[in-house]
Parts: sequence; structure tokens; C-alpha cells
Amino acid sequence: MTRGFGSDNHAPVHPSILASLETVNEGHSPSYGTDPITQQAVEAFQHHFGPQAQVHFVFNGTAANVLALQTLTSGYQSILCSDVAHIHVDECAAPEFAAHVKLLPRPSLQGKMQFSDLQSSLIRRGDQHFSQIKAISLTQPTEVGTTYSLAEIQQISEWAHANQLYVHMDGARLANAVISLKTTFRKLCTDLQIDVVSFGGTKNGLMMGEAVIILNPKLGEHFKYRRKQLGQLPSKTRYIACQFLSYFKNDLWLEIGTHALAMAQQLRSSVLEIPEVIVTMPTDSNAVFAKIPKEWLRPLREKYFFYVWNEVTLECRWMTSWDTREEDVIGFCRAMRELSK
Amino acid sequence: MTRGFGSDNHAPVHPSILASLETVNEGHSPSYGTDPITQQAVEAFQHHFGPQAQVHFVFNGTAANVLALQTLTSGYQSILCSDVAHIHVDECAAPEFAAHVKLLPRPSLQGKMQFSDLQSSLIRRGDQHFSQIKAISLTQPTEVGTTYSLAEIQQISEWAHANQLYVHMDGARLANAVISLKTTFRKLCTDLQIDVVSFGGTKNGLMMGEAVIILNPKLGEHFKYRRKQLGQLPSKTRYIACQFLSYFKNDLWLEIGTHALAMAQQLRSSVLEIPEVIVTMPTDSNAVFAKIPKEWLRPLREKYFFYVWNEVTLECRWMTSWDTREEDVIGFCRAMRELSK
Amino acid sequence: MTRGFGSDNHAPVHPSILASLETVNEGHSPSYGTDPITQQAVEAFQHHFGPQAQVHFVFNGTAANVLALQTLTSGYQSILCSDVAHIHVDECAAPEFAAHVKLLPRPSLQGKMQFSDLQSSLIRRGDQHFSQIKAISLTQPTEVGTTYSLAEIQQISEWAHANQLYVHMDGARLANAVISLKTTFRKLCTDLQIDVVSFGGTKNGLMMGEAVIILNPKLGEHFKYRRKQLGQLPSKTRYIACQFLSYFKNDLWLEIGTHALAMAQQLRSSVLEIPEVIVTMPTDSNAVFAKIPKEWLRPLREKYFFYVWNEVTLECRWMTSWDTREEDVIGFCRAMRELSK
Amino acid sequence: MTRGFGSDNHAPVHPSILASLETVNEGHSPSYGTDPITQQAVEAFQHHFGPQAQVHFVFNGTAANVLALQTLTSGYQSILCSDVAHIHVDECAAPEFAAHVKLLPRPSLQGKMQFSDLQSSLIRRGDQHFSQIKAISLTQPTEVGTTYSLAEIQQISEWAHANQLYVHMDGARLANAVISLKTTFRKLCTDLQIDVVSFGGTKNGLMMGEAVIILNPKLGEHFKYRRKQLGQLPSKTRYIACQFLSYFKNDLWLEIGTHALAMAQQLRSSVLEIPEVIVTMPTDSNAVFAKIPKEWLRPLREKYFFYVWNEVTLECRWMTSWDTREEDVIGFCRAMRELSK
Repeated sequence: MTRGFGSDNHAPVHPSILASLETVNEGHSPSYGTDPITQQAVEAFQHHFGPQAQVHFVFNGTAANVLALQTLTSGYQSILCSDVAHIHVDECAAPEFAAHVKLLPRPSLQGKMQFSDLQSSLIRRGDQHFSQIKAISLTQPTEVGTTYSLAEIQQISEWAHANQLYVHMDGARLANAVISLKTTFRKLCTDLQIDVVSFGGTKNGLMMGEAVIILNPKLGEHFKYRRKQLGQLPSKTRYIACQFLSYFKNDLWLEIGTHALAMAQQLRSSVLEIPEVIVTMPTDSNAVFAKIPKEWLRPLREKYFFYVWNEVTLECRWMTSWDTREEDVIGFCRAMRELSK
Repeated sequence: MTRGFGSDNHAPVHPSILASLETVNEGHSPSYGTDPITQQAVEAFQHHFGPQAQVHFVFNGTAANVLALQTLTSGYQSILCSDVAHIHVDECAAPEFAAHVKLLPRPSLQGKMQFSDLQSSLIRRGDQHFSQIKAISLTQPTEVGTTYSLAEIQQISEWAHANQLYVHMDGARLANAVISLKTTFRKLCTDLQIDVVSFGGTKNGLMMGEAVIILNPKLGEHFKYRRKQLGQLPSKTRYIACQFLSYFKNDLWLEIGTHALAMAQQLRSSVLEIPEVIVTMPTDSNAVFAKIPKEWLRPLREKYFFYVWNEVTLECRWMTSWDTREEDVIGFCRAMRELSK
Repeated sequence: MTRGFGSDNHAPVHPSILASLETVNEGHSPSYGTDPITQQAVEAFQHHFGPQAQVHFVFNGTAANVLALQTLTSGYQSILCSDVAHIHVDECAAPEFAAHVKLLPRPSLQGKMQFSDLQSSLIRRGDQHFSQIKAISLTQPTEVGTTYSLAEIQQISEWAHANQLYVHMDGARLANAVISLKTTFRKLCTDLQIDVVSFGGTKNGLMMGEAVIILNPKLGEHFKYRRKQLGQLPSKTRYIACQFLSYFKNDLWLEIGTHALAMAQQLRSSVLEIPEVIVTMPTDSNAVFAKIPKEWLRPLREKYFFYVWNEVTLECRWMTSWDTREEDVIGFCRAMRELSK
Repeated sequence: MTRGFGSDNHAPVHPSILASLETVNEGHSPSYGTDPITQQAVEAFQHHFGPQAQVHFVFNGTAANVLALQTLTSGYQSILCSDVAHIHVDECAAPEFAAHVKLLPRPSLQGKMQFSDLQSSLIRRGDQHFSQIKAISLTQPTEVGTTYSLAEIQQISEWAHANQLYVHMDGARLANAVISLKTTFRKLCTDLQIDVVSFGGTKNGLMMGEAVIILNPKLGEHFKYRRKQLGQLPSKTRYIACQFLSYFKNDLWLEIGTHALAMAQQLRSSVLEIPEVIVTMPTDSNAVFAKIPKEWLRPLREKYFFYVWNEVTLECRWMTSWDTREEDVIGFCRAMRELSK
């Protein structure tokens, strides 16, 4: 496969993270999360999210989201989410299947639910015929590379809790939002009363591994059983935990995210100068969304693979990652400029 | 943690398998199972199980079992299994939750279901009040380190298929059974009409990774969606696939299993000479089951960790792995002999 | 409770149907659907739907829909339905919970899905990340009292089957559609290749009782077990079957539906002459939808109970039933005219 | 069908209960449980069970049990029940499917779980690999017509609650146990801290209708939604409620149960005098269990239908009901005596 802008899932593992696997590969270790490496990794998360954070490692993002939503709901309830939310359109009905919830997609603007629309969604409270809304799921950064501001999240979160709703944050690329918003994990999540966070690792340089972080201390009683039941309890947990330890050590997370964001900004700046390219979204994370002439698709994708995000409008998604090189961006833009002539 | 005989999950990753991760950590690769390493790993399995094998990689053993059972059943049906089966007593109701099946545990002898008992289980066929039995799940080797002979499996499998029942094999340590029975994967599974196999990697030297192998070509239509839905579709699949490639390369699986079995035999032989130790099971795989005086438990477990298998009878499980050293066995037996004096 | 236009669920049981209960209340009878009355009722359905109809009685409409959808799907698939469909907004996530399907609501016009919109819904076929669409659920008549024409259903059904999709018809008031369209059950369902019908009794004069009618002979293998499992196998089935026997005997269904429709037409005609009343929907079944001045709501509902259908627009639903009297319609309209002065 | 001893489900509806349907069949009534008849029926239950009883009507016994178990558990937990419990062997895996619980059947003696056996079942508490036991389900009277004494229930209930376990009582024929034990509903259930009761109507003279009675005031928050979701919210609730009103009015329940029990006792006494008949169980409810010569089965069942309870031992179940006549018992015994000659 050629290098490209397809997905941060296409990138290899960051060398420091890969090296951590070898470091812990020594001697016997208790399984199922009771080893000292796992404990250290939990503490690394607590350093960033606060001491009350309950941290549970799982294998992938779909599972992190399902277990997070299970934590917040009983199986006849609904969850409000954006109509482009990953849980709604990219997880093969996993939340419906395993958390038995109903997803109520709301119209999104630049990937974000609108507060005014949320407010009108609670009309049928207490009506036994209507699946009762119990939580809101925000994706941060969103599926289209935008971010909710801290003020926007605060408004939603305060309204939600005033109405006995929980707030879930799908943070498959959470570090990118923290960096983009020049904030901290604690300010973005803990301080804004987010109840549960799906914290992504795989799209940020890890080999595989995500964390479910329960910030509301009243929740999580059943979590360990639910994780086991869903097939998400890693037996040799040290090999997931060490990746996160490495991710947080020496602020590697900051280095990875800052680089990916910088590459996205550089790509954005460059394509803004190409007349046929219409950038369609703000670039607050590691992805540039843009429309290009239809006839460019084939030649461009042969050189640098990327996905068409919307089959109808032909909006494309160009995603950078920790390993995107400046020369990749330059080459990609050069290829467009040549088509532009 | 001290070295011990607690679980093959406590052992580190085999160095060759760990090295394979670094080998594939180069450049971009398609995600979600469409990369060339995954294709090579599938072919390695097909080499051992036959060309019709459909091979799907998942993260862990609970998930492999649940997805295998989902493949065989509709959600009102039952599965016959041993009363000590892992799916029944160690997976926190995962099959009931995610495959919606009912498990009907059958009394086991040395970990194995008895054919005569199976035959009497079909009385209420067609009775709408009774969850209809649709499959049999065999564990090979069993949870107590014994194996079903090929003749035993053939008898069960022929009877099952004559009665429109599928046969699942939970093979968390399948290689050990193949080695112990001096047979091949194909003879043990494919030729005996096993419909679906849960093939274990994690307990056999991998970091993490299992495979669901669908051998019945009429099955598996829905599998890829079901795997995604259960949160078991690895995004960076190459890092699971490469481990299995390494596992099969140069017959590493044979080396790993043969060593673990040899260590178990050596342990068995040695403890048979200690009067207070009562070996309770045949040792056909990498575990020795034995009863020891209650007062030995604490001092022994401080030196070499192991699990008490049965809290009532105090039967203990001593498990070897690819990294068990002869000196571990010798030291462990010496410790017992000292207690024996 | 005053008489009103709240729901056909508020009406009592038709006297002939009530009388049938006494008729069958004699002697012992086999339970669980094996009695002769049940067999006769099945044959009454087959008379109307054709001999291939598999007919199963259940207690209520939610269950009929869930079991119908279960018959058509595997638990990772999606169903297209109108955004006002009862299964989507009035059944407390029952389809998601018990059939594990995802509902994909489509924008409706006068309660009906639009064919052009359906066609664009199949873009992500075969994509394992996307819950695969497997069926379309039509409500006939719709929740807002309109009907799909036979030509509209034919177009949808042909397109659906050409694309390997099943078609479900939620017919809680199916007889009303048959009468309104001057057609027959067979022409409306069987001849148009509807795969499964939820056939309503309770809203059409029965005490309680619905039928799931499987018209596609390739489906239904698991139905009897699924019904039992969902708690929908009546033990004393004769008491549901006799109601349907009575419903079909001497074309009582035709009498009941014709009367309810006539009352709705009379109501519609009368309110069209009241300037403040805006009729919002065609009246093809036994309900009139209209907007009235907000200040009329309280005084009108005190005399004749009815529901506000849309809390935002204050659109109201006035529903007639087998027991609506001409004097009820006249009195209701008189009350409005008095408010109108 | 000839009259017989097959099931109390084979009997017709008691005339007083049937008459109640006609009594309430007048005028419009709110649906979904908000009508005055339903309120009166709830109060009738509260008269017998105490004012804290939350009473919910459902269609049948399987659903009552499933909803009761849902009320007590989260979907990864287990329930202890007898190995002959209806929920385990006669409900087509309904509890597993709809409550997602695992049933752990315990060996029974005369249909009853043994206290000593229950005590040993909590060994793996807190172990995330093991589905955690959260409730005990007692059937009263049991499936084989025996009863737990008040002292036995008290012992189990106290132990259960001391161990944070809930207690469910499956009372499909609860009135018979109350009568047999010469106690009251309150003493048998409420005073012994039973958390939830499945209260049967259909097998006790009703047409159809059961009640879930939540006695633990801390439970039941989600019940109304769960009932709707499972398809168990009757729309015309007055027709179930009136049956229970009639059942309790003038102590009809006492009359019905007393008669059925007396008929069972008379049958028991008579067959005890027939040498070939071996009565196998105490007769504490409305069923006699006995073994008879195999060659009697066909001729006897042609005259008086009954079920063979155990296909292996040929133990038979002879069930009486409110409509069993003395002449039925006499005729049945005469037929046996003739075979006995």
C-alpha cells in the first residue's frame, strides 16, 4: 500500500510504543488486569483525568463505546447522538445489540449536535411507549475533524445533568481535541462533568488498545463483569497497558498529536491555494475535508490513498497521522496542482 | 510475580512472535483485515486445516467462543457442553448474553462429556416449550488437561450430524491436543467434521490473538458483520496476523507445544514419587492436576504461584507453558519434597 | 371516561366478538394452539390471504411487530421505516431489544416513506461497519390515517425483492386499508409479495389478539419457538382464536371497518366547514388529523377526549371506532362550532 | 377433546370470571392500564399482599417470570433455580433471551431446592469470570405439586437477603399453595421478604392474565418501560383487570383452589388403593404424580387425557382444576381398576 491520507489506522505503531512491548516481555505476570504495569498505566490516566477516574482497558473502539454506553443506560433507553456519529453509522448496530439502547440521531452542523435541537428532544419523558432518553454521546473531535468548544460542552453537559441525562464522550482521537483546544484532559472531561470517556489509543500511534474512563464515581459498579462478558478483558493486560504508559511518558501523546495536527494544517493551507479544491470543514483535528473534481479521484488515489467521505457529494477525507511526513503533504499537493493545470 | 505454574497466560510472548511485530511495523497498511499479512496468515491456517477453512481473527478467547456459537445457532437454541466447560463457568454468561443461547451442561468424566449421556438429551425435540439443542461444544484439550481421542470425537460428531447438530471445538490450546494425540489439525478437526473451531493463540505464546475457523462451508455468511458488531474487528489487523504467521513459521507451534507438554510430563513424573501428592487426572496437555496436603498450599504458592482448581476438594492445577524451564519443575518438586519430609 | 375520539383502543369489545368467548367456553380443550377453534381461525385467515399463509396468534401489536421483524432479520441488520412508524416511536425500543435490529427512520410525507428516498439507502451494502438493511416496514394504513396505494406498494415491494430486501406490513388496522382501497387482503398483501403481516385485532373490535401472518413460504421455520420465548404463546388459545373467527364470520370485519371509516368521513366533512379547523391529512382510514385553535383544546377534550398528536404544531388526532355513533360526531362538531362563534 | 387430567390450562374459564368481561364491556375506557377497573384490581391485590405491593398485569406466565427476573438482575448475572423449574425447562430460554441472565439449576428433591446446596453456591463471588448469582427463584407450589413450608422459605429468604440475593417466587398456582399451607398471601410472600412474585391467573380459572407483584419497594423503577418493551402492556387492560377483580371477589380464588385441591386429594386417595399405581410425590397442590404400568398408558389416555411427566421413568402427572368433577375422578379411577384386574 502506498503511503497516503486514508486513515490514522493505516499508520504503523510509533517506535517508542512498539519498544515498550519488548520492555515488559520479561518473566511471569498476573493476568486479567492485576499486574503492576496495568496499575501504572491506570495511574498515568489518573494523573491526567484526576484521581477519581476508573480506568479499564479494552481492545478496540467499538467495544469501548458499547461498554461506556452500557454503563450509562438500562436496556430500554435511548441515546442522543449526531447523525454522523461513529456509534450510529460505523459500528454495525453494536450499541443496539450489546447495550440494547436505541440511538436517536440528531441533525449535525459540521459534525456537531446543536444545543437548540437537543432541548426539544425530551417531550415524551415518562411516556412508557417511548424509549426514554438517558444519555448524550458527543464525539470529540467529531467525525469531520471539528471540535466542540469547552463552552459548548459545558452548555450541553449542564443542561444534560439538570435533566438527569448522562454525557458520554467518544474520544477515539481525544488527544487531538485537547491539543487543538489548548486545554487539558481534565479541563475538557473531568471538569465539564463528562460521565464516561472512550479514550482512543489505536488511532494515535498504539498497536491496539483503548480505555474506558468512568469519571462519575456513582457509575461503574458492574463494569468489570460487563467487560468480561463482552469479550474485552485482555488476559495478558500488560501488553496493552505498557502501550499507554509509553503514550503518556515524556508527553509522547502531545508530540504525536501536535505533529498530526500540524500536518493537517499544512495540507489545509496548501490546498486552499488550489482553485478547484473546496475545503468544507474547519480543520480542528487531524483531518481535512474537501471536495475536488470527480476526475481527479482516480489519479490522486493511485498516488496517495484516501477515502471519499460522502458518495453523493464526493466530499473527501484526508487524514494525517503521527507518521505523516512533510514530503507526503508536499507531494500530495503537487499532484493536485498538476491536475489543476 | 515469581515464576510459577499459574497459567500459560502468565508467560511472556515468545521472542520470535514478538519480533514479528517489529517486522510488519513498516509503512501504511490497509485496516480491518484487508492487508497482505492477514491474507498470508489466513493461508497458513488453510495449509493446516484445508483450503475451505474460513479464518477470522479476533482479540480473545471469550469472543472467539461467542462468535463461534453465534455462527451455529439462532437465539432460542441450546448448546450441550461439559459442566466444567470454560464457556459455562468462566465467561461471565457471555454466550447467553451475546449469542442468546442456553447452555446445557452435561456431567463430565475427567473433563469430557460422555457419549451415552449425550444421546439421551434429545427427548424434547420439536417441543416449542423447550429450548432446542442445536450444537455440542467440545473443549480440546479439556479444562482439566485431558483430550478426547479421535475415535471419541468421531463418535460424537457422527451422531451429532446425524441428528442435525453442529459441533464446536473450543481449542484455546488446540496445538497441545494435536501434539499429544500425534495427529494433525486437519485430521483432528476438518476430517472429523468439526463445524467451527475456536483456535487459541494467547495461551500458546502470542501476545494476544485468536482465530475463529469455520470449516463447514455452509456457515459463516453473517460472520464479518457479527465480528464487527461484537467489537472484535481489529483495525490494525496486521499486528495479530503476524503473530500467527510467526506461530506457524518453521513449526514454531510444534516447538512451543512440545516443550510445554514435556515440562508437564516431567512434573507429573516427579510428583508421582511424592507420597502426599495425588495426581487426579491424566496429563494429556500442559497441565497437571493433583491434590496436596492443605498446609502445603501457602508455602508452595509463595515460591511458585498456582491456582487451586477446586475450592472444596483442594485439587490444584499446575500449568506449564512455552517458557517453563526444567529448573522451575525441579525447584517446584524440591519444594514439595521438603514439605513432604 | 366520556366517549370520545381518543383511540380505537378505548372502545369496548364488539358484542358478537364478546359472545364468541362464551360459545367456546365449554369443556376441555388442548392448550398452546392445538385446539380445533384455533385451527378454524387459521383457516379463516387462509381464506382471505391464501392457503400458504402461516398464521400465528399473539397477544398484542408490539409483540406481533417484533416477532415479524425477527422472522425477517438476523440481529445485526437494519430495517427501513417511516419516521412516524409505530415501531420507531411508540414501542419503547422493542424491536431493538428483542429483534436486535436497528431501525433506520426515513422522512415521511403524509405518513408514507418516499420511494425515491428508499432507493438511495443502499449505498453501504456489504460494508461490515454498517448495519446491513434487510427489510422495509410499511404501516398500512399509516399512523396518520393515510394509505399506500396498491401501485405504491407494488413499486416498493418489487424494488425491495429485487434488492434482496423483505417487506413487512404493520397492519394494526389492516381491514380499514382494505376497505378504503376497495381491495382484498389477498390483493393487498399476498399478491404484492408482502413477506410478513402484523394483523391487528385489538383496535378493530376484539378484546385482545393479533396475528402474525407469514406469507413467504421460505420464512417462519423458527417462529413457534420465538413466539414462546417472547412470552407470546397463549395457553388457552381458543379464547383468542374465537375472537378472530367471529371477526371474519358474516364479514363482521367489513361491517366494523366500514362503519369506522364512514364516521371518520362524516367527521371530516363536518369540520371542513368550520373555518378555524385545518384538516392536515387525507382521511383514508378511521382517523381525522387537524389543527385547531389552542384555546379550544381544554374545553373540547373535556367533552370528547382526544389526543394531541404533535405537541409542537398542536395537530390533533380524532379517531373513530366500531362503536362511534353519529350523535358523537354531531355533538363533537357542535361543540367546535360553538367555540368557533 | 375428552375431559381429563392434562392441565389446568385445558379447563374453560370460570363462569363468574367470564361474566366479568361482559360487565366491563360498556363505554369508553382509557387504555394501557389507566382505567378505573385496573385500579380496583390493583387494590384487590394490595388487600392481599399489603399496601406496598406494586402490581402490573401481563398476558402470560412466561412473560411474568421474565419481567420479574429482569427486575431483579442486570444482564450478566445468574439465578439459582430448581432443575425442574419451569423457567429452566419449559420456557424456551426466555429468561436467557430477554433478561440475559444465566440460570444455574440446582438438584431438586420433590421439586424443591435444598438449602444446604444453595449455601455452597456462592464460592466465586466477585470473580469477574463467573456470572454473579443475584437471585433465587422458588416455584410455589412446585412443578411436581409439592410446597415449600413457610419455615423453608424463611430460611432461604433470610440467607438470601443476608447475602445480597433477591428472592423470586414463581406462583403460577400460588393460591393453591396458600390454601394447602393454610396461610395467607401476605404471610407467604410479603412477610417472608419475597421480592417479586409471578402471580398466576390463567391456570386458576381466568381466560388469560397474570400479575407481576413487586413487594420490595426499592425495585420496579424501570418496570413499566420493560413491560411495554417486551410486548406485555395490554391496551384494553380492563379486560384482564376485571378477571382478577372477579377472582378475588367473594373469595372466588379460595373456592376455585379448594375445589381443585380436594379433587386431587380424592384422586390420590383412590389410586393409593390400586396396587399397580405408585404415587411418587406428596400431593400439596392440584396434581398427583404417579407411575403406572406402561401398557395402561394408551387405554387410559384415550378416556382421560393426561401427560407423561418423565419419558424415562413414565411418571405421570394428573392435574385437577376448578372444573374437575367428582365423577371425572371416579371414572378415571374406575378405568384404572379395570385395567388392574
